[in-house]
Amino acid sequence: MDIELTEELHRIGERARSASRILGLASSDEKNRALLAMANQLLEDAPGILAANALDLAAGEQAGLSDSMLDRLRLDRVRLESMAEGIRVAASLPDPVGITLTEWKKENGLDFQKISVPIGVIGIIYESRPNVTSDAAILCLKAGNAVILRGGSEAIHSNRAIASSLQVGTCRAGLPEASIQLVQVTDREAVRLLCGMEKHLDCIIPRGGKGLIETVSLHARMPVIKHYDGICSVYVDAGADLEMARSILLNAKCQRPGVCNAIETLLLNRAIAPTFLSEGILSLLERGVELRCDKESLGLIPESIMVEHASLLKEAVEEDFRTEFLSLILALRIVDSVDEAIDHIESHGSHHSDSIVTEDAKVAERFLRGVDSATVYWNASTRFTDGSEFGFGCEIGISTDKLHARGPMGLQELTSYKYLIRGSGQVR
Amino acid sequence: MDIELTEELHRIGERARSASRILGLASSDEKNRALLAMANQLLEDAPGILAANALDLAAGEQAGLSDSMLDRLRLDRVRLESMAEGIRVAASLPDPVGITLTEWKKENGLDFQKISVPIGVIGIIYESRPNVTSDAAILCLKAGNAVILRGGSEAIHSNRAIASSLQVGTCRAGLPEASIQLVQVTDREAVRLLCGMEKHLDCIIPRGGKGLIETVSLHARMPVIKHYDGICSVYVDAGADLEMARSILLNAKCQRPGVCNAIETLLLNRAIAPTFLSEGILSLLERGVELRCDKESLGLIPESIMVEHASLLKEAVEEDFRTEFLSLILALRIVDSVDEAIDHIESHGSHHSDSIVTEDAKVAERFLRGVDSATVYWNASTRFTDGSEFGFGCEIGISTDKLHARGPMGLQELTSYKYLIRGSGQVR
Repeated sequence: MDIELTEELHRIGERARSASRILGLASSDEKNRALLAMANQLLEDAPGILAANALDLAAGEQAGLSDSMLDRLRLDRVRLESMAEGIRVAASLPDPVGITLTEWKKENGLDFQKISVPIGVIGIIYESRPNVTSDAAILCLKAGNAVILRGGSEAIHSNRAIASSLQVGTCRAGLPEASIQLVQVTDREAVRLLCGMEKHLDCIIPRGGKGLIETVSLHARMPVIKHYDGICSVYVDAGADLEMARSILLNAKCQRPGVCNAIETLLLNRAIAPTFLSEGILSLLERGVELRCDKESLGLIPESIMVEHASLLKEAVEEDFRTEFLSLILALRIVDSVDEAIDHIESHGSHHSDSIVTEDAKVAERFLRGVDSATVYWNASTRFTDGSEFGFGCEIGISTDKLHARGPMGLQELTSYKYLIRGSGQVR
Repeated sequence: MDIELTEELHRIGERARSASRILGLASSDEKNRALLAMANQLLEDAPGILAANALDLAAGEQAGLSDSMLDRLRLDRVRLESMAEGIRVAASLPDPVGITLTEWKKENGLDFQKISVPIGVIGIIYESRPNVTSDAAILCLKAGNAVILRGGSEAIHSNRAIASSLQVGTCRAGLPEASIQLVQVTDREAVRLLCGMEKHLDCIIPRGGKGLIETVSLHARMPVIKHYDGICSVYVDAGADLEMARSILLNAKCQRPGVCNAIETLLLNRAIAPTFLSEGILSLLERGVELRCDKESLGLIPESIMVEHASLLKEAVEEDFRTEFLSLILALRIVDSVDEAIDHIESHGSHHSDSIVTEDAKVAERFLRGVDSATVYWNASTRFTDGSEFGFGCEIGISTDKLHARGPMGLQELTSYKYLIRGSGQVR
């Protein structure tokens, strides 16, 4: 164990705890003023931030990062403007803290009030994209939480520049500098040490690949809100409007195949399978979607389509139905009924987002109740699982956990609650 | 690692998962019918349960368990009746599942509905008291969750008899037997293995001593809802009604000193310290409360009281302000202001329950906002932190965590939520 690093992280933790107590009692005005100061500071510091980003990009190129990795790393004026705009939007949203969630009075005269409060200190562990530094920090601050950020090594110069700019903004508005702190050490040891700091951190949110999330889950002594994989499905029922099914599938698979709310599995009811497999799938194939079909469905695809799209039509293996492809690949299976579809989703899916296409309201309700996922759709694309599409105004991620927060997480999900009880001398 | 035990626990986990899917969709009627059948079965099986309990008691006596441990272990007709009555009360409570928490419509026509759903499979790890077997099982079932119970070795015969009786009741009402399962192995290895079964268990609730809770926190791969210690305080402000303060202190310290919502610390405002220390403390001393006082307060106690109660008046050491005595001992400190009281509580307390006694509404509000505890009182005893005192009708425990559930946990806190989204073909 690295003693110096341990001590440094504990100092960061203590500073965050102190800052969180001031932030937790800050008024909406104070917090919003700080947010606007942060947005201004970020733009004022743009040249320095872009210079820092250039260092990261150069190092990334030298290290042979892929083009898509480099693109996620890259900052420019437009991206900085959009980060600043994100901060201004956060300032305009209602304060999630201090809201009376419920209140009641007991016969003994005690007044109970349940109000929302900040969680306290939140750790965000993330990879590559430097805009997370700003997005995560501002949402935590708006909800009255101090944040400890630990970004990836590939973005360390950009993250330092952004974090220090945000800190200047925070200080200018009179809130503690330690409201936002960036861990300067980017190796895995820092993650493991943070995971053991349950006295200082009330919660950790890992954002990144499976490896990172598994490391955090394994080591964390405090609650973790995971943003895991999305193995999402669309079930096309016997009672589906096939044109609607075609359009939803195209959107859910192709609009942005690399994101968690895109689908990986298509379940077809046996009754409509022949029709769909001779017409509906053409749109998918024409968009270059590779279909991994179970034996039965493969047998139902007309010879002409088989020939024309030979390279895109393959027989599925069991593992395909448990895989998040994150690319233009779709596993396809025929099922007998909505119940079989539910069973498949429950045993193969990741409880993220699933959709049924049908005109039959009874079947739809069965699906909506029976599928235990964060978001369950009827006649809509799974791509709507997103804080802004939900109307939250912002998003810190999409929780695949069932406790505390599930699905898109906005400001409300960054709060806890407490009970205030007012009496006149009551004893038990 | 014990392979046989691992396999057995995984079988239990799989059975629980299957049962949870049926329970999650069960109607309120089905669940309530099962609960009433369980209450009847428990009473019908009373002779067998009491015989099993006698075995545990005999073993406990032989093992030299303390009288209070033996008392917690002991069952009799009255206690069984009260367990059955607890089950009937649970049946009469409103179903916490399927409640629309919020709903809204977006301009694109999508209908959003956020509804409460069961958590899934809950593990309860507890010690000694066999009534927890019944209490925990029925609350989980009422909220649509399958439960895996792992009680202490000292109550194993009683727990087996109770669990099997509850299972018979569940089956009679047509719900899965595996809704309630008891782990038959009571060594620590079983706890560690359960903690690694994140695929099968959605959440673990440890109830018991610090050692148990720490083991579970250390090993658990799934969310843990902890029911940790209660280092609770009363702050008597300069503006306090001293007679009210006396009565609240007496209740909060003496009514049941061994429970988590009893107080361990008394903070006195300097302005009222001389008066309180020469009058108010007498009631506490007469009830046999040992006071561990900071230097200043010790100096303010009149000589006559010092002499008469010499054995109960000691100088405090720093550790006393961080200790859950669970007995008639109270640490006492003088503070300058409500802010110093808040600081003390934030740095020494366990964020459970704290109370201010004052007639000054402004000071009280400062305390209510500033103290970051699950329940914060104004002019009332901390002893009200309890599910039934809150009006929840029942309680699975008191969470000292800030995520998912905080403070007394009733049925609502045993649920999660999901979003149902109904559309007409919307794509993004």
